[in-house]
Amino acid sequence: PSRLPGYATHQVGVAGQCPSFAQSNNFFVLFSGLIIQTKNAWKFPGGLSEPGEDIGDTATREVLEETGITSEFQALLSIRQQHGRPDAFGKSDLYIVCRLKPLSFRVSFCPHECLRCEWMALAALATAEEATPITRRVASLLLYGHREGFDKVDLTVRELPALHRGLSYKLYHRDLPELYEKMSAMD
Amino acid sequence: PSRLPGYATHQVGVAGQCPSFAQSNNFFVLFSGLIIQTKNAWKFPGGLSEPGEDIGDTATREVLEETGITSEFQALLSIRQQHGRPDAFGKSDLYIVCRLKPLSFRVSFCPHECLRCEWMALAALATAEEATPITRRVASLLLYGHREGFDKVDLTVRELPALHRGLSYKLYHRDLPELYEKMSAMD
Repeated sequence: PSRLPGYATHQVGVAGQCPSFAQSNNFFVLFSGLIIQTKNAWKFPGGLSEPGEDIGDTATREVLEETGITSEFQALLSIRQQHGRPDAFGKSDLYIVCRLKPLSFRVSFCPHECLRCEWMALAALATAEEATPITRRVASLLLYGHREGFDKVDLTVRELPALHRGLSYKLYHRDLPELYEKMSAMD
Repeated sequence: PSRLPGYATHQVGVAGQCPSFAQSNNFFVLFSGLIIQTKNAWKFPGGLSEPGEDIGDTATREVLEETGITSEFQALLSIRQQHGRPDAFGKSDLYIVCRLKPLSFRVSFCPHECLRCEWMALAALATAEEATPITRRVASLLLYGHREGFDKVDLTVRELPALHRGLSYKLYHRDLPELYEKMSAMD
């Protein structure tokens, strides 16, 4: 077989999840996720990466465009690979969910892209029938991280120098304890 | 701005790392990683995903082609995103490293794709100057996982049903404790 690479095989979609604490009407403090409703189901705000755009920047851009919430990238949470999606133009699809930190809280959603947008308690979202399976799973991941530490669920990022003429890249993996971090840190 | 998706923006490369225990000449048991040498440096065997191919299948296929080692997918370890690579035809590049379980151990490497191939002790690889920074980091991740449990570094996979006509997808994230797994498991 030819060893030459072909062409781009994947579109990359990125969703952002901004979990936050919020005061409910009943004076309970809820741990909430930011979600939008499309015709199918509740899901996280997100969209396709633009050429040259970093994963975290896609997430914060799409969250702002769809919900009006400003946010800051924290970590990757999950990656989905799917082939044969009818909306992927024959390409495969990678869908990455990021954990973001909200910097504003007032929702002002885009009516072209969603029917509703709200903060929903994550414990409710994790079991909501009208949410997609991936949305429920990520809600569970976030609840777990909220209760036992986000280090349990996060893939954090570091920027490293590339071999090619002054370029750099972003690398995502589990945090390393200091001992192991030092071992390989001759970057 | 247009809300229509464009076209595929990423090529996806996948490398497989088959850590294994091996008896050295000095009768020490080493924890080794499978690596190949290209003109630049030591690195993990790997290559580009073919259209429609799952990440784990790319990893095991490339490892077999380049090294002669058969293996089984275990988990994702890290994800790199890079823009502007000269060998990426103007597309962005995602490079994913998987943890594989070796099913054979005798190296029979492809002379078209590498100069040498061997099992190297991971503690040595984590500090090897002639290895790429990402190779050293993943070696550190694997040492950490070997000593304290691979659950500390792995993103494991589950297959879930897609919304689209009988399709399914693969979803990678940190393992959830049973309590949280059940919560969202109405998939």
